[in-house]
Amino acid sequence: MNIEDQTGTTVLRRETEAKPKKSWRTWLIGRPLPTADAPHQTIGVLIGLAVFASDALSSTAYATQEMLVILMVLGERAYDYVFPLAVGIVILLGIVTLSYEQTVPAYPNGGGAYTVSRDNLGVLPSKIAASALLTDYILTVSVSISSGVAQIVSAVPDLFPYRVWIAVGFIAFIMVMNLRGVKESGRAFAIPTYFFVIMMYLTVVVGLIRYFGGNLGLVENPPPLEVFHGTVGVGIFLILRAFSSGTAALTGIEAISNGIPAFKEPRSKNAGTTLIIMSLILGSLMLGISFLSGHIRAVPSEAETVISQLARTAFDGRGVFYGGVIIATTVILIMAANTAFADFPRLSAIAASDGLLPRQLTYRGSRLVYSRGIILLALVSSLLIIVFQASVTRLIPLYAVGVFLSFTLSQTGMAHRWWKISKLKEGEEIKEHSSILRYDPNWLIKLIINGFGAVCTGIVMLVFATTKFVDGAWVVIVIIPTLVFIFTGIERHYRHLASKLSLENYGGLPQIARHRVIIPIGGVHRGTLAALRYARTLSDDITAVHVSIDPQEAERVRTKWETWGDGRRLVILESPYRLFIEPLLEYIEEIEALRQPNEIITIVVPEFVPRHWWASLLHTQTALTLRMALLFHKDIVITSVPYQVD
Amino acid sequence: MNIEDQTGTTVLRRETEAKPKKSWRTWLIGRPLPTADAPHQTIGVLIGLAVFASDALSSTAYATQEMLVILMVLGERAYDYVFPLAVGIVILLGIVTLSYEQTVPAYPNGGGAYTVSRDNLGVLPSKIAASALLTDYILTVSVSISSGVAQIVSAVPDLFPYRVWIAVGFIAFIMVMNLRGVKESGRAFAIPTYFFVIMMYLTVVVGLIRYFGGNLGLVENPPPLEVFHGTVGVGIFLILRAFSSGTAALTGIEAISNGIPAFKEPRSKNAGTTLIIMSLILGSLMLGISFLSGHIRAVPSEAETVISQLARTAFDGRGVFYGGVIIATTVILIMAANTAFADFPRLSAIAASDGLLPRQLTYRGSRLVYSRGIILLALVSSLLIIVFQASVTRLIPLYAVGVFLSFTLSQTGMAHRWWKISKLKEGEEIKEHSSILRYDPNWLIKLIINGFGAVCTGIVMLVFATTKFVDGAWVVIVIIPTLVFIFTGIERHYRHLASKLSLENYGGLPQIARHRVIIPIGGVHRGTLAALRYARTLSDDITAVHVSIDPQEAERVRTKWETWGDGRRLVILESPYRLFIEPLLEYIEEIEALRQPNEIITIVVPEFVPRHWWASLLHTQTALTLRMALLFHKDIVITSVPYQVD
Repeated sequence: MNIEDQTGTTVLRRETEAKPKKSWRTWLIGRPLPTADAPHQTIGVLIGLAVFASDALSSTAYATQEMLVILMVLGERAYDYVFPLAVGIVILLGIVTLSYEQTVPAYPNGGGAYTVSRDNLGVLPSKIAASALLTDYILTVSVSISSGVAQIVSAVPDLFPYRVWIAVGFIAFIMVMNLRGVKESGRAFAIPTYFFVIMMYLTVVVGLIRYFGGNLGLVENPPPLEVFHGTVGVGIFLILRAFSSGTAALTGIEAISNGIPAFKEPRSKNAGTTLIIMSLILGSLMLGISFLSGHIRAVPSEAETVISQLARTAFDGRGVFYGGVIIATTVILIMAANTAFADFPRLSAIAASDGLLPRQLTYRGSRLVYSRGIILLALVSSLLIIVFQASVTRLIPLYAVGVFLSFTLSQTGMAHRWWKISKLKEGEEIKEHSSILRYDPNWLIKLIINGFGAVCTGIVMLVFATTKFVDGAWVVIVIIPTLVFIFTGIERHYRHLASKLSLENYGGLPQIARHRVIIPIGGVHRGTLAALRYARTLSDDITAVHVSIDPQEAERVRTKWETWGDGRRLVILESPYRLFIEPLLEYIEEIEALRQPNEIITIVVPEFVPRHWWASLLHTQTALTLRMALLFHKDIVITSVPYQVD
Repeated sequence: MNIEDQTGTTVLRRETEAKPKKSWRTWLIGRPLPTADAPHQTIGVLIGLAVFASDALSSTAYATQEMLVILMVLGERAYDYVFPLAVGIVILLGIVTLSYEQTVPAYPNGGGAYTVSRDNLGVLPSKIAASALLTDYILTVSVSISSGVAQIVSAVPDLFPYRVWIAVGFIAFIMVMNLRGVKESGRAFAIPTYFFVIMMYLTVVVGLIRYFGGNLGLVENPPPLEVFHGTVGVGIFLILRAFSSGTAALTGIEAISNGIPAFKEPRSKNAGTTLIIMSLILGSLMLGISFLSGHIRAVPSEAETVISQLARTAFDGRGVFYGGVIIATTVILIMAANTAFADFPRLSAIAASDGLLPRQLTYRGSRLVYSRGIILLALVSSLLIIVFQASVTRLIPLYAVGVFLSFTLSQTGMAHRWWKISKLKEGEEIKEHSSILRYDPNWLIKLIINGFGAVCTGIVMLVFATTKFVDGAWVVIVIIPTLVFIFTGIERHYRHLASKLSLENYGGLPQIARHRVIIPIGGVHRGTLAALRYARTLSDDITAVHVSIDPQEAERVRTKWETWGDGRRLVILESPYRLFIEPLLEYIEEIEALRQPNEIITIVVPEFVPRHWWASLLHTQTALTLRMALLFHKDIVITSVPYQVD
């Protein structure tokens, strides 16, 4: 089949993979996968827990400590409050889990706060949810990685000056793992997640046995109490601040409901099971760690983490088990970032396909993952780490406002969904954007569950925003509306463009009546002649234009043009102010003003292509400058005719 | 006159100044000046001294201190060496000045080391000289500004954390002054230069009167001795290291001979007078300061400069005169950078017009100064300041190698010039590149002066390079050959290009036999149709190409093209690996392989122009990517047809 002889429509299949020069990419992220491979890349409950739960579980490593940091102004009495607060947080965890158990079967294609609020609350709430979630995924990466590196640095203080770069290095590593594809990274992360769960349970169980056996003492040589930062209030505000810090434990819950499509069929069931297992582990660890930390009188400190103090008290010193706990905690914190790497690109792609973000985010890369979203997340979270110098203390107050905002929107949306369902007749079905509404006799109890969840998480969000406002929550409160504003701008752009490009009721363009060609020339040489030759195929109406700064040079151009210019018109523009582009533009605008209807102007710019890329720095980029300057002029086309010097 | 009806050559005068949107630039650097204004912008001896001498004079502020820093390993005996070393430096200053007095009348258009060695020694030495000088001008800016800021910071220690940004701010200020034009900046700098000269003489004279009157004591409460850096050697190597540090006083001497064209006529005479005045001031201050510093037992220190100790000892405490000295020293150090701003762009322009640097450096901006050179110098010297954290101590060892290298080359060149002149008959004249050789009966004495100068400065250069090698001189010893290498590459590029573009013995290009047009389309919309309409004016041979990632989308494109595609060929390229550019390139390369002799391919890319610049981030830049990928393909032209959405 000779492709050049075809008429009508021809379909050619291009098996083009990556170019040979891109082989380092193949080495780094694996061979390209064809689109048809997509459905195979799904995961079961065991690997799903590893991929989506590490964020939530890892927060047990700092939630208790963060509560203690706030409570320490109360002195010894702090230890009386920490366990009751943990119970409160676990109750909240139960409410949120129950709420999300309603969402998972209703949205088998992923029921993140964005989807749920778009379907049930409208455009603005869905944009707010998307902003909150995207912000939060970024912070998840920054906080988890910083906290993980802080563990390493506590163990090896010599690494302290390099902590920012170690953190950025970890992000780069996770980025590459994710660019390889979700299944392989799931496998790579499964072992450490389960290792963490086992080590933490071991610590808690040993601790509890010794406590109830009466032979668990206080922590030996606790680190010195540090100066408190923040307001020293007593009473309800203080308790609420401590509670807010503890709610960091709930970040990451939404990950599973957002990531349902990554699960094996039956995916709703698998995802629901994973969510319950995760919450049970999270809740029990939170209670156990908080109970024991209070009883051993652990001192929150930048020098030694509460987990470390708990482990060496439970295991009587820094032995093999202690080392295991520290390594497991460090690793899970670093991997927690992986949760965000699974979800951020997916949500970006959904928002982009709804026209809220650049369309490029919907393209899947050679390994079937949303590569651009992965790279974007890596860049922004690295930037945050650099700006905040990998300090968990400075990042924590930014965290969790977004999470609870999205919880509230999601739950409110679900409550509204049950209300819509209550209006249906039995057996009736309505197809919505991302789910199907089916009559459910239990709608009232489900409405109450989600409604109660919405009220609780809404209150927590307000408490967090109020008590942490000056510490950094304000940053997020500024960023979320900004993102909503950007989404709206992008959405408007795509809509406007589509309407302007639409062929509906379009009469077509009038025929081009005249085609005029202008060739700006710096001198007369082979490149100029190549441009002139090309220009002759476009039109007979050709004008060469020389902007003259030096009269002698202009004279040389004139003489040479007489010999080589094929008798075409030459205009010399004298430029006493030594400007080049401006007189040329002025001339083009004069010509433009004189032109006939349906006349088109093509500016043919001779451009020589040097052997080496750096040599382009040695020449003025006339074509580029003209293209920028004339972009908004109708019916002016700029063509650069490359002349290959070799 | 209707410009569109002209045939043959038309000359139009464009009085285009800056565009209205550039008015902030006019406000910042002044109204544009036409080329005809150039000769008016010259300066006399008084302003010339302010413009070109501040670098040399300001070095008295640190030369003595830098010698003492090295000598302090000798303890109290250091003070015995400082004055004799200063005498040695002043003798060297005399030799260099005498040598340059020969150069100034010989090269009325500017006789920098570059010009002199190009005319008399050849291409390679001239490139070495240019590298040395350009490096040195950059260091002049970095060292002087850093030293000036160090004075401010010594006076107001609170500013210490901001020193780098203060330094960069000063560079920006000097840059703007210079973009306004040399005469105005000369005026702005004249008062502070003369204020410095007066204050320094006052200090030295008062100090000497009190010393010989027997009532000048030792410095009170000198700063504590700091830890010595560098090798602790004794004997000749130590003395030579101290001498090398002191030679920093000679940097800046060449400025005048390089800048002769900036002087009023008779410019050689004016420049020569300025040079002698400058050397006399410099030498006398150097001797006075070194003599007194030794006698008051000044302690070199980062905490308090030697000048400050001298001033408060001479004026008995920190009164008005002391304040005057400190302010004057600070200001002159900052302005010293201005010398380099006068010379660096001029030398860059000369080197660029010889094809060693990008041609763009020869263009004079709207205020008749070489704007690009000024901006380049500001950027590179700011970068150095940021890298070296504005530390004079770390910058000093990089300084002066380049200066003495250029002195040596310049003097050697002059010596060779007298040798050439000795071969002429009386009254005979030979025109060289930048000067005229005329018989001179005193050629022998002049040859001896320049030859002796060359030998002395050559020895000093070797001493400096040896004694300061490990402290940083090696950096410059690496940079100079690198620059020479770059010059040679650029020179070769321009030569090669000129030969390849030359029309001599050029047969012209064959006629274009066939013109094929390819339109890559993402969809069928108004923008696509505008591109198709344009393509029809180019050729009848048109193929639209759609790269298909989604089969449904491809089907939509096919159906729409049947309605709107004017019966033209459509090729659908299926891309199972979701690549876009690669299959398109592969297709174009197949077409390319099939084409007939003298067939040209134009790729017409539809491109919509959104209302806002940021919206271009929301679209893939197909035309740009194709242009980059197909740059080296012969006879392929890429045209983007803009479609203005509004």
